[in-house]
Amino acid sequence: MNIRIPADVPQSAADRFVQNYKMMTHDTGRLMLFAGDQKIEHLNDDFYGEGIPPEDNNPEHLFTIASKANIGVFAAQLGLIARYGKDYPNLPYLVKVNSKTHLVKTAQSDPISSALWDIEQIVEFKENSGLNILGIGYTIYLGSEYEGQMLTEAAQAIYEAHQHGLLSVIWCYPRGKAVPEETDPHLIAGAAGTVGCLGADFVKVNAPKKDGKSDPSLLKEATVAAGRTQVVCAGGSSTGVEEFLKQLYDQIHVGGTAGNATGRNIHQKPIDEAVRFTNAIYAITVEDKSVEEAMKIFTGK
Amino acid sequence: MNIRIPADVPQSAADRFVQNYKMMTHDTGRLMLFAGDQKIEHLNDDFYGEGIPPEDNNPEHLFTIASKANIGVFAAQLGLIARYGKDYPNLPYLVKVNSKTHLVKTAQSDPISSALWDIEQIVEFKENSGLNILGIGYTIYLGSEYEGQMLTEAAQAIYEAHQHGLLSVIWCYPRGKAVPEETDPHLIAGAAGTVGCLGADFVKVNAPKKDGKSDPSLLKEATVAAGRTQVVCAGGSSTGVEEFLKQLYDQIHVGGTAGNATGRNIHQKPIDEAVRFTNAIYAITVEDKSVEEAMKIFTGK
Amino acid sequence: MNIRIPADVPQSAADRFVQNYKMMTHDTGRLMLFAGDQKIEHLNDDFYGEGIPPEDNNPEHLFTIASKANIGVFAAQLGLIARYGKDYPNLPYLVKVNSKTHLVKTAQSDPISSALWDIEQIVEFKENSGLNILGIGYTIYLGSEYEGQMLTEAAQAIYEAHQHGLLSVIWCYPRGKAVPEETDPHLIAGAAGTVGCLGADFVKVNAPKKDGKSDPSLLKEATVAAGRTQVVCAGGSSTGVEEFLKQLYDQIHVGGTAGNATGRNIHQKPIDEAVRFTNAIYAITVEDKSVEEAMKIFTGK
Amino acid sequence: MNIRIPADVPQSAADRFVQNYKMMTHDTGRLMLFAGDQKIEHLNDDFYGEGIPPEDNNPEHLFTIASKANIGVFAAQLGLIARYGKDYPNLPYLVKVNSKTHLVKTAQSDPISSALWDIEQIVEFKENSGLNILGIGYTIYLGSEYEGQMLTEAAQAIYEAHQHGLLSVIWCYPRGKAVPEETDPHLIAGAAGTVGCLGADFVKVNAPKKDGKSDPSLLKEATVAAGRTQVVCAGGSSTGVEEFLKQLYDQIHVGGTAGNATGRNIHQKPIDEAVRFTNAIYAITVEDKSVEEAMKIFTGK
Amino acid sequence: MNIRIPADVPQSAADRFVQNYKMMTHDTGRLMLFAGDQKIEHLNDDFYGEGIPPEDNNPEHLFTIASKANIGVFAAQLGLIARYGKDYPNLPYLVKVNSKTHLVKTAQSDPISSALWDIEQIVEFKENSGLNILGIGYTIYLGSEYEGQMLTEAAQAIYEAHQHGLLSVIWCYPRGKAVPEETDPHLIAGAAGTVGCLGADFVKVNAPKKDGKSDPSLLKEATVAAGRTQVVCAGGSSTGVEEFLKQLYDQIHVGGTAGNATGRNIHQKPIDEAVRFTNAIYAITVEDKSVEEAMKIFTGK
Repeated sequence: MNIRIPADVPQSAADRFVQNYKMMTHDTGRLMLFAGDQKIEHLNDDFYGEGIPPEDNNPEHLFTIASKANIGVFAAQLGLIARYGKDYPNLPYLVKVNSKTHLVKTAQSDPISSALWDIEQIVEFKENSGLNILGIGYTIYLGSEYEGQMLTEAAQAIYEAHQHGLLSVIWCYPRGKAVPEETDPHLIAGAAGTVGCLGADFVKVNAPKKDGKSDPSLLKEATVAAGRTQVVCAGGSSTGVEEFLKQLYDQIHVGGTAGNATGRNIHQKPIDEAVRFTNAIYAITVEDKSVEEAMKIFTGK
Repeated sequence: MNIRIPADVPQSAADRFVQNYKMMTHDTGRLMLFAGDQKIEHLNDDFYGEGIPPEDNNPEHLFTIASKANIGVFAAQLGLIARYGKDYPNLPYLVKVNSKTHLVKTAQSDPISSALWDIEQIVEFKENSGLNILGIGYTIYLGSEYEGQMLTEAAQAIYEAHQHGLLSVIWCYPRGKAVPEETDPHLIAGAAGTVGCLGADFVKVNAPKKDGKSDPSLLKEATVAAGRTQVVCAGGSSTGVEEFLKQLYDQIHVGGTAGNATGRNIHQKPIDEAVRFTNAIYAITVEDKSVEEAMKIFTGK
Repeated sequence: MNIRIPADVPQSAADRFVQNYKMMTHDTGRLMLFAGDQKIEHLNDDFYGEGIPPEDNNPEHLFTIASKANIGVFAAQLGLIARYGKDYPNLPYLVKVNSKTHLVKTAQSDPISSALWDIEQIVEFKENSGLNILGIGYTIYLGSEYEGQMLTEAAQAIYEAHQHGLLSVIWCYPRGKAVPEETDPHLIAGAAGTVGCLGADFVKVNAPKKDGKSDPSLLKEATVAAGRTQVVCAGGSSTGVEEFLKQLYDQIHVGGTAGNATGRNIHQKPIDEAVRFTNAIYAITVEDKSVEEAMKIFTGK
Repeated sequence: MNIRIPADVPQSAADRFVQNYKMMTHDTGRLMLFAGDQKIEHLNDDFYGEGIPPEDNNPEHLFTIASKANIGVFAAQLGLIARYGKDYPNLPYLVKVNSKTHLVKTAQSDPISSALWDIEQIVEFKENSGLNILGIGYTIYLGSEYEGQMLTEAAQAIYEAHQHGLLSVIWCYPRGKAVPEETDPHLIAGAAGTVGCLGADFVKVNAPKKDGKSDPSLLKEATVAAGRTQVVCAGGSSTGVEEFLKQLYDQIHVGGTAGNATGRNIHQKPIDEAVRFTNAIYAITVEDKSVEEAMKIFTGK
Repeated sequence: MNIRIPADVPQSAADRFVQNYKMMTHDTGRLMLFAGDQKIEHLNDDFYGEGIPPEDNNPEHLFTIASKANIGVFAAQLGLIARYGKDYPNLPYLVKVNSKTHLVKTAQSDPISSALWDIEQIVEFKENSGLNILGIGYTIYLGSEYEGQMLTEAAQAIYEAHQHGLLSVIWCYPRGKAVPEETDPHLIAGAAGTVGCLGADFVKVNAPKKDGKSDPSLLKEATVAAGRTQVVCAGGSSTGVEEFLKQLYDQIHVGGTAGNATGRNIHQKPIDEAVRFTNAIYAITVEDKSVEEAMKIFTGK
């Protein structure tokens, strides 16, 4: 794989950037991001309740999956990583910099999510702990009345991360009173292009829909518009495993994405099933396997 | 007791962190927090009025109790500690970093409580005064339109406290126009999980209720969701002593909490009764005694 | 007098703190504060108009009184002190840190008063000018939607002042849409207790009222609730001299205050009368004289 | 002239302060300020249109006048000074620190004008450019909901200017929804007194009016209330030359002002007339000439 | 060409400033700015859709044009430059400092666009990357309730850029609830004059209109009002090529502008046509050619 080092990575951090990029994408440029940051974003809704195995309530479930399954990187808040990291020292971590709860709805106030830590602290944390931190993540709500604060914090986070050879992944969701159709393909392409102008390495978008239906080909506008920033797509709402894997395959091979960011579809399963499912996702994303091959991994047959 | 040092505590502060943890929990991991920060939060309502002994109006009452009774740590604002600390040099202190009054109600404006001191000042205060400061405290109102500011200040306070080997306790209350049910068990579990992602050592939550009734078993979701962050529960509104102690016992042994944070149930008693009551709480929390044994301590029989 | 040095005064500043405390209270612990900060707070309403002697319009009137009469400390903004200080080098000064005008009423917007200078600048000013600056003052509007900003600035001002051995006086007034009864005794006690938790040396409150009537005994709740922070009370609206002195005497001997903060009742008099009146106030406050003795001082008989 | 150096000017900057004061007032204490900052404040309304000579549209017109006429100081934004300063190196400059446009009216939102440069940059600019910068200017809208931000920025600007021996001139206009009568004499006196408490060297106020009519004697309250801060008055709306000069004369000799700040009445004239008019203003203000003498200067007879 | 170095460029940066100015204007003082910052400003609306060639969706299209055509400078966000800069090392770059999306309309909230990077980071980026960065750009929405924040950030960006010898270009658009006629010639002249007072090297304005019709002579007020700050005009909405070039010619030769800033009229063409069109614009702007000569360049005849 030929990695393009962006020009805001200084010479002194170039080797580390390449090393982090290779580690996070297993030398393929494809990213399997296991999202473990929803305990703030969705409170306990994704972790406890009907149809969710009891073990998912314990945040260690996330670390267990991440340690047993094939993943590119495990994204979580610094605080959560700090409490489990010493027992899972070899995981590839991505520190999620900002998070908000879903309590205040857009009808009450446009969304705003503020940085909880600055990049200097994340670098200090990495050095003090020796943990394998490969990058940082930040969420922008585009179209919010507060988008300016988030655009600035994201631009700063990307720039500062690159100064230290860390990768940057930006979650970018159009949301706010000014956004009637959050999953409009053209709007999602605009979001992807915006993050490209901020200089991020990856942008995570939600799956675009037309007439209420998701279709991987709708991603094509976005993956081109993002330029050299690579698009990864949400696993979306829970569907059947095979359907999920087929969508993922098409997102990559039809839509032109470079991977996926998946959370509850993984952790809302018992550990063994979660690991097999993660490995199936990894197979398609990173190992370039077919849906059939991935299903074999999932079913263990 | 086997203390897990979180990964954001640097090597140089690890010994102090362990020492503070052991001192605050008397080597048990269980925390009896005596809350003395309500003179701002509730103004003089908790300290003066019908049914409150006159001596409670004098803030020194809090220090007298803390010095005569068994406690894990005494929480108060830096300013109050500064004015009495030299006469009570051996108390284990926790500096409450932020506080607001209850004058502005949620119907007028969502709650916001800002940091009054930064952690560098608290560390400086500790060093200059020689006082036995073991940790810091911060209150988050989750679901407020201003939760972002408090989440950031809390994350910073925890991180900076850990840099100096200080413990962190986060009071986390869902509150605001977006929160119709502040004591919903699932919501409180979300609050506990949120604080776990910020990396705090302890999270203090209010007792969850179902259909208007408190039940220690309702805490189980929260104590698991918090992960390695330990949950301590409010003593709640004033009830009879035996009922209070029984609830506390069940919060620990049924709900899975690691202790309690109690304020007015203690200080709204004459000094002698307050001390015996505190000792009874301590007995259950830290010494793992039964309700019957604790009642003996309270009644002095 | 036995001065308790608060624990946030570092050892290196302890002697200066004691010296400032003794100078400001003339070794008695009692404070006669001459308030000269209303030219911003009340614009020219207190200084020019019917029943006010023409000389009061000139701000030098304040300095003339302060230099001829017995006072504990003269409070004014840094800028005003800077313009007259070299001609009045021996006055004991207290720099008022924040001020607002009374133009915007609470019905339009809740009150907010921001710091005009930081403590480092005040210390620099003191050193460069050689002026006899003993402390700093700050006003908090408790119950305002912006109380958080003022609580933080006040806590910072107190802490930083103590780092340099300067005293701190906090004016604390409940005010805002959430405060229907600004002079409720219980609320004023809450304000006094709040300032105690911020660690100030003195808190200035308005005289509490019950059923619209002021009564010094209503201060008792507040002077106890403030703990080791000493309460000084406003001279209040203009009344007859003897009535004023009697109230002051009772505030101290019945209400438990440690002094007074008086402005317009002093400066809205011709110089000679103002000086005699100030001396009478001083006699009661600092010299522990009776009302009769003070009246003799005022009348010059 | 005996210059009182305010106490916030450090010893090391005292000589420069005196030198700047003498240069700006030509050793008289009287100030003729030529205001060239309206290109932001009034956009192009003052510079282009019916009755305005075409040459006024070019900002260099301001510099040409300032270089050919007698003035005390020429006030303009740093950016404008930077673009013409090298060609007009000997002008006495005052850097206007903040400016806003008049587009947003008070009915929509209360006025706020933020500092564009900090004093450190102005000092750096002065040193790098070698320009003859004597002081700084700042506008406060008193009674605006945002007056707090402007009071703080003004206090800081004055204090920091004095640290470097620079003079400070504060434009102070009561304005906002809370201000029904912007030119009330008592209110203007309050504004002047407020600026005195901030410690400025000069305060510029608009001409007070009673029953809609301007009268120099109405300034008397303000010029006393300002204390040692000197009052300069706006030239006001365009009137005939003789009427203008007579008003100016009376403002000084009846109202007690120390000079004037004049803009459009000067620059809305062809260069030759503008120079003669400026010289006439200067004659009254600085050279203490009569109206008749000044008229001779204006008419060139 | 005789370049006037503004006085806020320090001696040490003067040579670099001159060099940058000459490079950006090819020794003519005329600026052909190719605007590539709309991927945030207009999301994907300008880059994908009916009538837009598919290659425009890929941001590299912008770099390809910039590298093959004659231009003065290529403006884009730092992040986008960072991702392509190493493959296009010889382009003359201008870093656009702030950007917002067009999702929130003025009817919902007045426009605000915040700086994404500070000038120190841009200078650091230039030094680390070795890229040919000649200046910075910033957009002000004059008349917005938030104009103060943008005026301050713009003034700071200009001043700091000049400290490092970088040029500054300010996009200045009147916009907000207070602005009914964004293209009023007198208002645009005010905008140009405002930017002159901030000290920018170039101000980009939209083409003024009278009675809904654009006319280059309407620019005359603005180009004079801007003083020594040079005016460049938007290419405006898409029109026919010859009409566009004629307007551009007249803007320069009738309106007095010093160039143009053109975006979608260029990049919404296939690469070959885009290059020829850019060269035609360049011919008129920088090479002072006639419309006829420029048309020959465009048609390749």
